[in-house]
Amino acid sequence: MTPPAHDSVRAVAWDDGALRLLDQRALPQRVDYLRCTGAPAVARAIHDMAVRGAPAIGIAAAYGVALAARARYAAAPATWKQAIETDLALLLDARPTAVNLRWAVERMRAKIGALAGDPGEALLNEARAIHEADVAANRRMGELGAALIEPGSGVLTHCNTGALATGGYGTALGVIRAAYAAGKITQVYAGETRPWLQGARLTAWELAQEGMPVTLIADSAAAYLMAQGKVRWVIVGADRIAGNGDTANKIGTYSLALAARRHGVKFMVVAPLATLDTNISSGREIPIEQRPAGEILTLNGQPVAAPFATAWNPSFDITPADLIDAWVNETGVVFQPAPAKIRALAG
Amino acid sequence: MTPPAHDSVRAVAWDDGALRLLDQRALPQRVDYLRCTGAPAVARAIHDMAVRGAPAIGIAAAYGVALAARARYAAAPATWKQAIETDLALLLDARPTAVNLRWAVERMRAKIGALAGDPGEALLNEARAIHEADVAANRRMGELGAALIEPGSGVLTHCNTGALATGGYGTALGVIRAAYAAGKITQVYAGETRPWLQGARLTAWELAQEGMPVTLIADSAAAYLMAQGKVRWVIVGADRIAGNGDTANKIGTYSLALAARRHGVKFMVVAPLATLDTNISSGREIPIEQRPAGEILTLNGQPVAAPFATAWNPSFDITPADLIDAWVNETGVVFQPAPAKIRALAG
Repeated sequence: MTPPAHDSVRAVAWDDGALRLLDQRALPQRVDYLRCTGAPAVARAIHDMAVRGAPAIGIAAAYGVALAARARYAAAPATWKQAIETDLALLLDARPTAVNLRWAVERMRAKIGALAGDPGEALLNEARAIHEADVAANRRMGELGAALIEPGSGVLTHCNTGALATGGYGTALGVIRAAYAAGKITQVYAGETRPWLQGARLTAWELAQEGMPVTLIADSAAAYLMAQGKVRWVIVGADRIAGNGDTANKIGTYSLALAARRHGVKFMVVAPLATLDTNISSGREIPIEQRPAGEILTLNGQPVAAPFATAWNPSFDITPADLIDAWVNETGVVFQPAPAKIRALAG
Repeated sequence: MTPPAHDSVRAVAWDDGALRLLDQRALPQRVDYLRCTGAPAVARAIHDMAVRGAPAIGIAAAYGVALAARARYAAAPATWKQAIETDLALLLDARPTAVNLRWAVERMRAKIGALAGDPGEALLNEARAIHEADVAANRRMGELGAALIEPGSGVLTHCNTGALATGGYGTALGVIRAAYAAGKITQVYAGETRPWLQGARLTAWELAQEGMPVTLIADSAAAYLMAQGKVRWVIVGADRIAGNGDTANKIGTYSLALAARRHGVKFMVVAPLATLDTNISSGREIPIEQRPAGEILTLNGQPVAAPFATAWNPSFDITPADLIDAWVNETGVVFQPAPAKIRALAG
């Protein structure tokens, strides 16, 4: 079997003793890579969005922990487990909303607790396991989600949830890939995703790599697109899912869910179990990252707005569970997510 | 009384025998003016969006007819009324959605029919009358709309509906001006209004001219802003209103109306009677202008999306009447617009 072209897109990779990140700020104009040799560089890459997407930043952080352990153990073999706490905190603080970041760091921390001697190989293997499990979860979610889609469908996605945002293949975009391969999708629409334009810069680029047709829209055009009957499913990822099914995802997702409900368009969230935060009971408790006003007030570094304007720039919003028809995770599909169904999953 | 600063913003003005247009493509970086001496230049300025906003393009077209009449009469005094039809068609075709353009050209055509001899002065006076009536209508709508707003309100607007979009003062922004002057508004939120960024470039500039606080948001953040309880009214203009109250306005308006309804936020349309098209019974019949894909695929002339991506770029959408709480026009307020109420108005 010829490997599909998307396997060539590796946002996060371990390469010759360091973490190699595809710098997503330069796409689609340039395909540049960053080489991170320590946790501070990884945390900075996450904070500055060289790597983004909830699963991808979790994986990057796991490799970051492995890098940190190598350095801390080399510097002070007796006390490295105390010293590495600084690195873990740095990684945890890099972005506040995606729970995958915390999940990955906590898993690495648990591994650290069980180690004796040089931690290098064991932690690198743990990071690799997280990475491989994410790709496998995406493949499985792709199958499960694609099975829900009727042949001849137009679908709409938001932000970027593909190979660039994950360990590989993608969450929402993985479902779209699988459904497209199965001949079920006639047209993919992608919101450009202001202010960072992940849809225009990243999703269009990923789909173009594979020859899939993609039509960009202004995010605000989605409701009118649905009114035209062009969309059967809205398919999105998630950065954190609360115990009641409320879902934090890229700003604009909530608007899509409202428009979908008005038009009888189905709404699918595709996210691995690591996205679930059972510590919180509703979306109100999810911390929402505020990004710099400059992302709204400038374009390509040039001011676009009048000098006295300010901006409110939340990076995520909350879609209430009542607007979600299906949450696809690697264990199955939760239809109409609700607390009891989610407790059963987490149990 | 000191004249308010907004009177200094004149998007459309008759100046020394020609039409002077503030070139809105250059704002807020540069305040440039175009001097149009004939109908083709006016039609081009409308088509290319040097002048935009439904009332403003109607007024510009009226002056364009006056310019055309001067030239056609000078060239052929006996047959100018036939010859000018070419100019009228050019102006009518410049943009398809705003009915004010057609309304203004038809009013000028009616005047032409009644004229004998040199039409120059009479048609210039007719254009001036249209212009002055628009400003007066805006002032009146400002009072009527402001009366609906509760003290201490946050309001959200979309696109630009101010002095730049009208003969002066503004429609939706006129209501916001009047309500702000009355001390009722604590915060103005403005959607940046992709793809053309009228909110960021024009509305923020206009409000900053008057020292009013304005906070820009990504259009897709509006629903989440409402979920935070920050908005009591959404206040927008209109390009065409059908006989049943369905309203065409800048793309994204419909999304705002859906989010407003979900959150109990009131939705106000502010547009003069000239925006009503009684020839059509519902929004389905309103022609929606498709703008070039390049507006989505490039930023500041630089490509932003992958080379193989396409875009769907409707400039307007339709907000169904059932989502509109109040239509403010210069004769009063139509609450919950519906066919019978609108027929009574037009009668």
